[in-house]
Formats: sequence, structure tokens, C-alpha cells
Amino acid sequence: MEAVLDELIAALRCLPGVGAKSARRMALHLLERDRAGARRLAVALEAAVDTVGHCSVCRTLTARETCSRCLDTGRDDGVICVVETPGDVLAIESATDFRGLFHVLLGRLSPLDGIGPEDLGLDQLEKRLQDHDVRELILATNASVEGEVTAHYIGEMAARHGVRATRIAQGVPTGGELEYLDAGTLAHALSGRRDY
Amino acid sequence: MEAVLDELIAALRCLPGVGAKSARRMALHLLERDRAGARRLAVALEAAVDTVGHCSVCRTLTARETCSRCLDTGRDDGVICVVETPGDVLAIESATDFRGLFHVLLGRLSPLDGIGPEDLGLDQLEKRLQDHDVRELILATNASVEGEVTAHYIGEMAARHGVRATRIAQGVPTGGELEYLDAGTLAHALSGRRDY
Repeated sequence: MEAVLDELIAALRCLPGVGAKSARRMALHLLERDRAGARRLAVALEAAVDTVGHCSVCRTLTARETCSRCLDTGRDDGVICVVETPGDVLAIESATDFRGLFHVLLGRLSPLDGIGPEDLGLDQLEKRLQDHDVRELILATNASVEGEVTAHYIGEMAARHGVRATRIAQGVPTGGELEYLDAGTLAHALSGRRDY
Repeated sequence: MEAVLDELIAALRCLPGVGAKSARRMALHLLERDRAGARRLAVALEAAVDTVGHCSVCRTLTARETCSRCLDTGRDDGVICVVETPGDVLAIESATDFRGLFHVLLGRLSPLDGIGPEDLGLDQLEKRLQDHDVRELILATNASVEGEVTAHYIGEMAARHGVRATRIAQGVPTGGELEYLDAGTLAHALSGRRDY
């Protein structure tokens, strides 16, 4: 095999979910049918790696000092939604009409992995609670054990500052069938029932 | 959203099989967890697009004038395997112990799409049949209608030059169940039966 082609196939495997066969297919597709696309991707990768860092306010990914969301005066700065990753920000924005601000933890509390509050930018978040008139802190960490622990920790911080903390609902996912749900989800769904 | 990030996500969609969600996941993965991999991929893409062209002899992808296979004196140059794409070359080499030479058509005969013999490098192949002592031409085009037509056309060319042409076997794929096979495959499997 050709060294340049081998290296391209190996490099494509750094993409999540791409194995040996997919990488080969991608490399051949780009070289045989879409060289303009390959060059565009190379330029976009370089540009992103060179310029994208974390927002100084909310810690999401941005190419500037402060991200466009934090600078947007049209947003409700009285509500801050706390999420684990920048991907969660995109997921929430594309699925909902939430137009408040975010705080991105870039992780979750996990003492076993040596991840404590200082790694999650909680000092920054606390400063935002002190300096701004925040009415509500939405705890949108994952529904995993670490996510719950993280939500609990941040919830206590909100209480210290007299800020209302809310947790996103847990229950039956859309299209879910009760018979196949795990016990924990079903218990959450029942205890979290609402007037109909 | 950030323009640089948006452009990276859009550029990743030029990869085959990558939709909006996968592209977003890939972009975030690279920026959050594997910037070295992203830079490596950018360099590999540029290098491949800049240097990889087609072999002057067999038309497969190579960074040189003539590919390493065609220059390899350890190969049997009396057998040429005709395939449609460079990917077919890789598939055959990784699955079999075939160590002859190749001719890559970079397509198949398809009059409706305006693809004739001159687009498949058949003049080059004919020159190889004239100039070298070729014993066997293996027709390994796909088992599609166009692949069969292409194989037939090249088979007649081989006959004109007194070269033996063979066609790869058609029949039941490994693990295949007769009950679910299409009629054409089953007919091929029966008519192509061998002593056991």
C-alpha cells in the first residue's frame, strides 16, 4: 500500500465511531470523488484547532474570548442552565426554545477520577450567582450517578446564594413502553407525575 | 453558534455516511479530546490530496508515477486482475493471497451515463496484453448488470489477443441461507457447482 494513503486511513480512525473499513471507504471516497471536500475539511480542522477555546464566562467552545451566547443581550440572563458538555448546549438549543444562558462543567464530579469542584468551573459559576441577578439555576447534568451527585452539589451552592435551583424531569422517554422500562425510570416517572 | 465550529461540522459531512448528528459528535470529540488527532488528520488530508494520483500502468491510487504493486518484481506479472475501483484492489489483497497485477477501470461501462471503453483505460490494458506475456485476465468487476457487461466486453478483448479470461465465481455467499437467496444467485450457484 501507499504510505500517504495508509496515513490518511490511519488518521481518519481518530474520528469517533470510525473503524478500519469505514476509514478506508472514507479515504477512497475523498480521493476519488471529493477532493475539494477533503481540502475544505483539512482547512476547517486546522482553523478549529488553532482558534477554538473555551468561553471565559460559560466555558463552552468558542473562537473568541467570550462566546456569542454570553454576549447576546437578547437572552434572559436571569436563568442559567448547567450542563456537562458543549454538546449538551447544542442539543438543548436545537431541541428546545430555551434562550437563557449556560454554564458548561466540561465534566462531572467524580472523586475516583480526581475530578473535584475546582475542575468544573464552579468558582466561576458561584461568582456569576453573586454578581448577577440570577432567578433560576437549571440543573441539566446527565441522569447518571455522577450527574446526580454533581446536580446535588450545585443545588446546595444555589441554596447558599438564595437562588432557586430546578432539575430537568426524569421519566418515560417519548415512545417508551412501560413494560420494558427499568425500575428506576418507572419509579421516577410515577413519583414525578403531574396533573393531567 | 460559532462560525469556525459550524464550518468544521459542515466540512465533516463531506465524509460518506456522516450526517448532521455524527458530524457534530465528531467535531466536539476532536476539539474536546483529540486536538492532536485533528491536526494529524488535516495534514494527512492535505498530503493525500496534493500527492495522490493514478498509477500510469494500472490506474490505482498512488503518490508516485507508477504504484508499488506494478514496480514489485516479486509479483506474478502473467496474471492481471481487472477491478472497478481502487477499493476493490484493497479488498482483494486483504481477503486473498492473490499476488498478481491489477488493472483498475475507475468505473464500468455505462452508455446511459456516457461512460465508454475509452474512459476505463482499456487502451492501456490492451497495450499490456500486447507488450507482456499475460497468461490470464481475471474479470473481477461487480456482479451487477453493468459489471457483467463490462466483463463481457473485456473478455472479448482478451479473446482477440489469445489471452485466457476468467470470471470470479458467483454463488451463495458464506453463511448464506438458500431459502432467502434471490433466484439469480441460486441459479448461478447451481449451474456453477463443482465436484465435492
